Amino acid sequence: MSEQWLTSLITKTPQEGYELAIKLSRMGVKYTQPSDAVRSKLRPDYSENSENLIASSQVIATNFQTVSAANNYWRD
Amino acid sequence: MSEQWLTSLITKTPQEGYELAIKLSRMGVKYTQPSDAVRSKLRPDYSENSENLIASSQVIATNFQTVSAANNYWRD
Amino acid sequence: MSEQWLTSLITKTPQEGYELAIKLSRMGVKYTQPSDAVRSKLRPDYSENSENLIASSQVIATNFQTVSAANNYWRD
Amino acid sequence: MSEQWLTSLITKTPQEGYELAIKLSRMGVKYTQPSDAVRSKLRPDYSENSENLIASSQVIATNFQTVSAANNYWRD
Amino acid sequence: MSEQWLTSLITKTPQEGYELAIKLSRMGVKYTQPSDAVRSKLRPDYSENSENLIASSQVIATNFQTVSAANNYWRD
Amino acid sequence: MSEQWLTSLITKTPQEGYELAIKLSRMGVKYTQPSDAVRSKLRPDYSENSENLIASSQVIATNFQTVSAANNYWRD
Repeated sequence: MSEQWLTSLITKTPQEGYELAIKLSRMGVKYTQPSDAVRSKLRPDYSENSENLIASSQVIATNFQTVSAANNYWRD
Repeated sequence: MSEQWLTSLITKTPQEGYELAIKLSRMGVKYTQPSDAVRSKLRPDYSENSENLIASSQVIATNFQTVSAANNYWRD
Repeated sequence: MSEQWLTSLITKTPQEGYELAIKLSRMGVKYTQPSDAVRSKLRPDYSENSENLIASSQVIATNFQTVSAANNYWRD
Repeated sequence: MSEQWLTSLITKTPQEGYELAIKLSRMGVKYTQPSDAVRSKLRPDYSENSENLIASSQVIATNFQTVSAANNYWRD
Repeated sequence: MSEQWLTSLITKTPQEGYELAIKLSRMGVKYTQPSDAVRSKLRPDYSENSENLIASSQVIATNFQTVSAANNYWRD
Repeated sequence: MSEQWLTSLITKTPQEGYELAIKLSRMGVKYTQPSDAVRSKLRPDYSENSENLIASSQVIATNFQTVSAANNYWRD
């Protein structure tokens, strides 16, 4: 992907960190299915299906572990 | 999301930490499906289906790892 | 949940730590489905279905990582 | 469980550590379904189904992370 | 695999690290199914199915944890 | 298993580490289903099914975390 979308894992607040985790999770989907049209067509499958919503939250949780560790849990 | 919902990962007790992990897990769903109406409609799928309940507990466990590490496991 | 059920992640032995991990896993289900009656009805789905048993063991394994780290792997 | 089955996470070799990870994974199933008869009946579901075999290997991998960290990766 | 494809986990930027995580995720598939022809045939299953896209993003997230830790989260 | 198959988690290169992660993942299956004949029969299920291929890559990613940490990410 030639577009630059990730220059740092550091965020000011935990909430921004969580939102970065969401972005990371979505980019995993985007790299695997680059077509905007196909992803749009699939969107209801994601967002109106309980199993997929929970699985999405699992991906976010995994990426949030990474972002949280990068930010030393915003303890400093 | 303009609403501020996460200002710190630090909690006083492990139980509050676990409850924060639950909140993190639910927010992952909420960001993916922002409509309250749709989420309400899906609620029985979550809470009356064994597979989804276990998957929800998995997301919570993953977020609890993050919160526990942030709090140095409440050992201090 | 007003009931206090988790005051420490520290246990005397690895086995007690594993049993705490089981409790954490079950509480994830209980917070998501608070009704004792519904959970009782679902119990056979959990305990007589291979896929769900393996998934339950996965949640326990994840929580056991947390409890083990909290206890410094009972090496001290 | 009154039976004592886990007194230490320390093993002499990585292979013994891997085998302990397998034991931990199986105990997660056993605590959830204590009946030997039911587990025996389910055994073919575990061991003759690709999806379940992969999921079992996932649980083992997660527990092996814990055991490996406990043993400082057998580097000492 | 005699081909050399992974000589370092160190990358210059987080984005390159994320892209390495994608490569690691794909290699896991390639080692399990080495035939280019079979993988090509399966591609629509991956990229046009919501559940599989989320699962792919989960694998990437897991590998990104590894790459991020290797790079000390690009904090230095 | 009386056969000795894992004496160290240390490898010379990240690629050898990745290949060790694959071996660990396969051994998880082999311990659960020791019969070569049954595993051979199941092989097409693994390698010609998208969901199973992704799940296999997930197990490998988890084991690669362990092997990478053991090798201090080959940074030394």
